[in-house]
Order: sequence, then C-alpha cells, then structure tokens
Amino acid sequence: MTKKVAVLAGDGIGSEIMAQALKVLKALDLDLVYEEALVGGVAYAAYGHPLPESTLKLAKESDAVLFGAVGDFKYDNLERHLRPEQAILGLRKALGLFVNLRPAVCYKELTYASSLKPELVSGLDLLIVRELTGDVYFGQPRGRRISPDGLFAGSEEGFDTMRYSKPEVERIAHVAFKAAQGRGKHLTSVDKANVLETSQLWRDTMNRVAKEYPDVTLEHMYVDNAAMQLVRAPKKLDVLVTGNLFGDILSDEAAMLTGSIGMLASAALNEKKQGLFEPSHGSAPDIAGQNIANPLAQILSAAMMLRYSLDMPEAADKIEKAVKRVLAEGYRTGDIWSEGCKKVTCSEMGDAVVAAL
Amino acid sequence: MTKKVAVLAGDGIGSEIMAQALKVLKALDLDLVYEEALVGGVAYAAYGHPLPESTLKLAKESDAVLFGAVGDFKYDNLERHLRPEQAILGLRKALGLFVNLRPAVCYKELTYASSLKPELVSGLDLLIVRELTGDVYFGQPRGRRISPDGLFAGSEEGFDTMRYSKPEVERIAHVAFKAAQGRGKHLTSVDKANVLETSQLWRDTMNRVAKEYPDVTLEHMYVDNAAMQLVRAPKKLDVLVTGNLFGDILSDEAAMLTGSIGMLASAALNEKKQGLFEPSHGSAPDIAGQNIANPLAQILSAAMMLRYSLDMPEAADKIEKAVKRVLAEGYRTGDIWSEGCKKVTCSEMGDAVVAAL
Ligand SMILES: CC(C)[C@H](C(=O)O)[C@@H](O)C(=O)O
Ligand SMILES: CC(C)[C@H](C(=O)O)[C@@H](O)C(=O)O
Repeated sequence: MTKKVAVLAGDGIGSEIMAQALKVLKALDLDLVYEEALVGGVAYAAYGHPLPESTLKLAKESDAVLFGAVGDFKYDNLERHLRPEQAILGLRKALGLFVNLRPAVCYKELTYASSLKPELVSGLDLLIVRELTGDVYFGQPRGRRISPDGLFAGSEEGFDTMRYSKPEVERIAHVAFKAAQGRGKHLTSVDKANVLETSQLWRDTMNRVAKEYPDVTLEHMYVDNAAMQLVRAPKKLDVLVTGNLFGDILSDEAAMLTGSIGMLASAALNEKKQGLFEPSHGSAPDIAGQNIANPLAQILSAAMMLRYSLDMPEAADKIEKAVKRVLAEGYRTGDIWSEGCKKVTCSEMGDAVVAAL
Repeated sequence: MTKKVAVLAGDGIGSEIMAQALKVLKALDLDLVYEEALVGGVAYAAYGHPLPESTLKLAKESDAVLFGAVGDFKYDNLERHLRPEQAILGLRKALGLFVNLRPAVCYKELTYASSLKPELVSGLDLLIVRELTGDVYFGQPRGRRISPDGLFAGSEEGFDTMRYSKPEVERIAHVAFKAAQGRGKHLTSVDKANVLETSQLWRDTMNRVAKEYPDVTLEHMYVDNAAMQLVRAPKKLDVLVTGNLFGDILSDEAAMLTGSIGMLASAALNEKKQGLFEPSHGSAPDIAGQNIANPLAQILSAAMMLRYSLDMPEAADKIEKAVKRVLAEGYRTGDIWSEGCKKVTCSEMGDAVVAAL
C-alpha cells in the first residue's frame, strides 16, 4: 500500500532544505505520496495558528511527518500559545510521539569543525533517547497564581509540574534498552535522583526494566555529571536515555560537540511507529532565502523516516551512503566548509546527493 | 569583632584539602576563629544523619561555612534523606543561601587541559549566578502517588513542583545585575520560557528588573541553546543568571570546559552575606587518603569566603595572587600536571601557596 508523507517545511530555511530532501526522496522512486501543509510562523500568518486543524489532520492520517524547522524573529512577541514552536509541542502531544532519537555523530571529514580537540570527538557516535511527551513539558497543573505557601506566600508565582509515571518510564526504557542491544550494550540513564522524586521513580523503573535485558549494562548518571562527561569524554558514552527536559539540554549539548549541527537529524516516534523527522538545527531566519543553508540534516531526516516509520531500510541506507560520499568528495555548504573543499549552495548539495545515490 | 568560621571538611578528600586551606588562612593571621564539625557521610556514620543538629547550629551561628566535599560509595544505598548530599541541600535551605556564585575561569597555564581547543577557552572568565533555594529542588508538593489524571491515571508516579515567585526572582536578578555591572555589563538570563510557565515568570521579572540597570544589556537564552553556546563559544558569555536546576547543569558544564575543575571554587550566600564556600569538584573517594588531591579549589573557596562573607578583600586578593604564583612557578598536583612541571602532593601544594603569600 502506498504510504503517505506529510511535508511540513515551516519557516526560515525550512522550505529550501525541504526541497532538497524531496528531490532526494523522489530520485529514489519510492511508493510514497507527499502532501504539503503549513506549520509554524507561516501557518500563523495564513491561519492565525502555528498548528492549524488542517495541518494536524494531515499529520495524523499520514504514516510519517517530514518536518523542516519553525520560528522567526517576526513571531517572537506573540503570546506563547501562538508562537511557532508550539506547533512542535502540539504535534508531539497529538501524535503521542513519546520517543525522541537524537544521534550525535561526528563525521570523519568534519572533525576539525568541533570545538573539542579532534581526538576527543573523531568517530563520536552517540545516541540520545529522550522521552518526549511527559515530564515538566506537559505536566499539569501549571500556570500563574498567587503563591499558596512558603517564604513568598501571597506573591505572584509561575509553576509547573514535573511528573513521570511507571508505565511512561517503562515504555521509553524498553526503547532505550533495545537500542543499546543493537549497539554497544551499554546504557546510561540520566536523572537527578539525588534531588527529585520524579527522578527516583525514573531510576527505580530503569532498574526494574534492566532485569529484562541482562545483556545490557545499565549505568545511572546525574544530569550535572552527564553535562560534564559529554565535554570531558563523549566517546565513553554510547546510548543515553533521559527525560524530556534533561534530554532537551543534553541532546543539544551533544549535537554541538560534533561541530556540525547542520548534519544532525532526529526522529520522534509513537507506539505505532508513526513519526516526525526533523533536523536538529533551527530555522536560521538570518540566512533564509539565500540558498546557502546545509540541507544534509534534512536529507538525513528523510533517511531516518524511511528506516523508522516507512519500513524502507535499504532506501535509508542509500541516502546515508550518498551523504557520506558527497562529504568524501569534498562538497561543503558554508557552515562546514574549510580550505580545499568545494563550496556549494543548498540546492547544489541536494544535486550532489542525488548524483551520489 | 572576631568572626567565626565553621569548618566542615566532610568526606573523601575533604579533610586533606581542608587542611591545606586552613594552613593558608592561618598563615595570614586573620582575626578569625575556626570550629570544626562533621558533615555528610562521616556525620551519618557518627550521628545517624548527614547534617546533625549540632553541625547545623554551628553553621547558623557562624559568619561563614568553609565546606569541603561530601559523598562516598559507602553511602550510595542509604535512603535519600540520609545520603551525604542532603547535608548540602539542608544547609542551603536552613541558612537561606539563595545566591550561588560559580565562576568558571580558565587559568592561562592550564589551558591545554581543557577538552576545548585552546583558542576557545584561553582567558575564559565566566560567572554563573545560580538561584539556590527555589525551583523544582525545593518546590512543594512533591512525592509518590497514584497518578490522578492524564494517559496514565491510576498508575504509580513520581512528581515534583517547579515554581518561582516574583520576589524570589527579583532578589537573584539584583545580585546578577550588580555582578554584571562590576564586569562586562552584559547579562544572559537562561530559561525555558518557550515551554515553562515558571520560566515565563522568570523572564518577565528579569525584564522588569533590567529597567533599574540601564547600563547592563540583558539577553535571554533558552537553556538548550545555552548548553550549546557554552561549547561553541564560551568566551562570548560573561555573566549568566539562571534557576536552581538549569544552574546545576550549566555550571558543571562550564566548569568542565575549563579542563581544571580542581581549581574552581564556589560561594553560596544569603541576604546577610553569610555564606557557604566549597570547591566545585566532589569528594573523589577513589583518591582519598593518598595526599594527591588538588587543594587549590578549597584554598580559593577560602579566598571567596574572605571576600564575600568576612569583609577581608585584601586577604582574599593575597590568596588568589599566591595561587596564580604557584601555578606560574610550575607547581602542579597530578590532576593538572603536564610535562615539564613540578609534580607536588596535596600538602606540598598547600605549603607552596603559603610560601607564595
Ligand atoms: C522548540 C522547543 C519547544 C523544543 C523542545 O524544547 O523540545 C526544541 O528545543 C527541541 O529540542 O526539539
Ligand atoms: C549534590 C547536589 C544536591 C548538588 C546540587 O544539585 O545542587 C550539587 O550537584 C551542586 O551543584 O552543588
């Protein structure tokens, strides 16, 4: 049966990089249909909401969502619930995308671009498994109120609820243990169990699930220590699993370690393997419309989509190999360019990947 | 009037490094009395609690607490409220130490020890101002319960409350703006206002307080981006202000950037300038008792104590200059040693600082 992909390019460089990903997908002549819709700031401009009903409906009835990026200076002063990023949160919640896979890979040819000394990052290949629909991101109750107690009772306060339930931790734990089984068989669970009740439940649950995976070594690490170890010796880590908030922070830190965030893709999945795939970088409104953005993260997001949601692993392999090849051949967009390499535009990079397929 | 210092050496290397700090302080012949007490695991072993009443009483009636480090493998399986770290949380709460100053300084001679390329960290001098008595660390309610609502209603969950009130953010904002005035006049406030209500209140309050400091430029940054910018270009940051949880993560990340966490001190202060001063590193039980730990962070904590709580800035200067001098003279403990330098023990390093005074 023909599968359906919702194409949500979004704001900023979104449409430019998405065009390259579609070019690559179409060159593979897969049994897929693509349907485009607006999301983020452009959707707000057209419909008054960053995630219009019609876009949400399309996403729900598709097998996968290929997502570009959202956000632009123009929308910075909107009320929070109308800002572009709310579309991402809304899609995660509505589709139940509780798994976030965020690989941090340092490509051999791009090692020099890292802030870290080459020996610390060359060959880095880390997978962060982030829980994506729970934690303080979505926990109720939350809001503004008059402080009911404590030292500042009677004054205005903002509050949120951090919470995780056992089955919620269990399901992400299984995903992480399975990922670890397919890799180095070492799983690092990150929490703040020395301070937080939520983390203590997280840790207890991880320990329980670990019994079902005797071949995987489970290690616990406090989040502050994890933030340090990522800088100190990232290659000692293999698969990290953590909650929504810590995952947000650590996956961005890890992505930046590689020095080429323009190369990193991510997947958000639900129980039915329906997924949303997006680059780890943002919408970069400052360079939008100039055809200079790096489309490789978007192209690699398409590859993740083929692998994780659409059951087309060979096609995914082809794309990933083609990307490695264009790098080996010296093609570079401005963000990863260095002396001696061929500087190309966004669309030329797309062409190069198609040629390398 | 003679001022009183509570000396809480704690566990692991705590007593060795504390002995060096006391040696340095005593060499300055200051009008101070020192009183020692147990804290952390050693206090648990002696009294059944990591923060015994007598220790807390001493801390409260002292002008400052010089703190070593707590924690040891031996106590890892105790119930949370009895674990060594609880002593730190208990002291912060009981003394109302809402300000945490965590400088991340990269000493010229030690630049090579950083994970980052030397040009990115040489001369790094960053100050993180972390709120220390609020946020999800202490917010009530918290605990375990049967989930009352949502997708997992009816199952066991852990929960915590993240909360900040206006006056609570205001008081830390004033500390941070004043610190920025004394430095580069640029303040970066870190939050997650695109997701959290607590952060939105934090941001609104920072904006309001900013009006009282027209000479300081206030910038807002999301915590995930801050975790990235610290890796990408840490020298572009000068003073960061943030909440308790984000501060925990970012200050450790920043400390690790310098490559010599054995050199970094921190201060926790209340409204009356009473303070607790401790190294940013931990108790390192694996090297305890061998006289090889680096005592410089503890010695620099003593300097911070003289400056921030005891009104003895000249004495603080003397210590900091002496530390710079021993580094310049090539003295190094094992953690920061490199070819061509003089390797010294913990106590020899203490002696070298005394000699350099
Ligand atoms: C845009 C924002 C709400 C989002 C998050 O915090 O999850 C982003 O930072 C991410 O990591 O995908
Ligand atoms: C020991 C722990 C409770 C503490 C914290 O999280 O605040 C420590 O990590 C710190 O930063 O001082």
